Amino acid sequence: MAPRPSHSLPGLSVRRDGVRAVTRSLPEEWPVALVYDGTTQAVMMASPADLEDFALGFSLTEGVIETPDQVEDFELVTHEAGCEARFWLAPGRRAALQQRRRRMTGPVGCGLCGIDSLEQALRPLPWVASGLRLDQAELAHATDALRARQPLHDQTHAVHAAGFLRPGAGIVLAREDVGRHNALDKLIGAMARQDIDPAGGAIVMTSRISVELVQKCAMAGCPVLIAVSAPTAHAVRLADGAGLTLAAFARSGAFDLYSHPDRIQTGASDVA
Amino acid sequence: MAPRPSHSLPGLSVRRDGVRAVTRSLPEEWPVALVYDGTTQAVMMASPADLEDFALGFSLTEGVIETPDQVEDFELVTHEAGCEARFWLAPGRRAALQQRRRRMTGPVGCGLCGIDSLEQALRPLPWVASGLRLDQAELAHATDALRARQPLHDQTHAVHAAGFLRPGAGIVLAREDVGRHNALDKLIGAMARQDIDPAGGAIVMTSRISVELVQKCAMAGCPVLIAVSAPTAHAVRLADGAGLTLAAFARSGAFDLYSHPDRIQTGASDVA
Repeated sequence: MAPRPSHSLPGLSVRRDGVRAVTRSLPEEWPVALVYDGTTQAVMMASPADLEDFALGFSLTEGVIETPDQVEDFELVTHEAGCEARFWLAPGRRAALQQRRRRMTGPVGCGLCGIDSLEQALRPLPWVASGLRLDQAELAHATDALRARQPLHDQTHAVHAAGFLRPGAGIVLAREDVGRHNALDKLIGAMARQDIDPAGGAIVMTSRISVELVQKCAMAGCPVLIAVSAPTAHAVRLADGAGLTLAAFARSGAFDLYSHPDRIQTGASDVA
Repeated sequence: MAPRPSHSLPGLSVRRDGVRAVTRSLPEEWPVALVYDGTTQAVMMASPADLEDFALGFSLTEGVIETPDQVEDFELVTHEAGCEARFWLAPGRRAALQQRRRRMTGPVGCGLCGIDSLEQALRPLPWVASGLRLDQAELAHATDALRARQPLHDQTHAVHAAGFLRPGAGIVLAREDVGRHNALDKLIGAMARQDIDPAGGAIVMTSRISVELVQKCAMAGCPVLIAVSAPTAHAVRLADGAGLTLAAFARSGAFDLYSHPDRIQTGASDVA
């Protein structure tokens, strides 16, 4: 049976004035194995919803595949211990993945995908060349607009979201997950499945901006990343080097720009 | 040269009333390779501070070693691309790690350490048997007490912290990191290096509670985990099965208990 993305669980609410039994809606967290031609590449803890989107998005942003048509077959299998996303790749891509695996000197555990050295951890990113322009007012309200598209967060108050903002149309697609990287992979996978080009808009996140979010955006070819919280210094450097516009602290109608600000049309005639 | 945990970077602050140049203190995020007897086990993105604590804590909570004396030698090497934490293990432990690696059917990328199957992702946890008792009032103020021990967060407003609360003494140790799992590993490593027994207190976190935080606490033998935000449903089940007391939504003098509440002495004579 497929798990649900949230569960009502019993707890005790302890306050100065007493203890009472409560029921809280908590987000589920579920192991998902990404398996390519019979070999497990990663096990991620994810919200069990939109897992087809997640598996395709992860495959694209981690460079396992370059385009969705490199997937020959796909199956999502639910076990008691978790879900398995089984891919069968086109022969050329299969060979490339096998070669990448052979380059690895030892098994890798955590944090970054298919990478066993520091150099590989900061893999070269494609240059994002989109000529997109985004209006200041639209960017300033992007995180508020995303807030209206978070049903799982409304229930649990504890999950992240990633949305796609298309100029003039607002947030056209959104996905949620207990992990911010997973939410982004789900969004990118859903866009690929619905044939929405990431070059034509901005990705909006409820979180901070880490190196991995910048890597995933650049891999997807999305030119603008907007987040409600801070970026890391390393994320700013990577975004600058990849041609990505980074907007952070986007809340209450204001935001900061840290790289490639030219894509944002502000009301100001010049910078103070 | 060793990197600093935060950097002042230039940005543009865009508001309705204009655009101005600003300088913000942003957290650094740095690749750290965990290398055992010459083989890379994982590359993690971490705040470059207290990396000796981090490396030892990670090794303990991920089960690479069982006790610090299984480390024969250690060296932290700073490269341009990141830091390398190089361990040389005692012969018996080296053999155990090699056997664990041979069990893996393929390279693993992300999310969980040294694990390539769903069963391994939810590894059996030791039962936490501590007879610790904690007073309601002390637990209720634990996250406020931790807040006073977060200098990097004061600068950047964007990093997590883990602290150790000893009954009657408050927060006796705290560590910070851009990643909550890393903050916890740093704390556990620092405790091991200072010979502080995790069984004698509670771990306090600024974050939500994921499966991996419960796993790390149980591996360290700490009986109580307190967090400012929500747990996942899976984290609650794991904590229950490992004998761990889970307190969440710990803020404003109140909290919820989700597993093994007996360790917490409340003022109430019975549950309403």
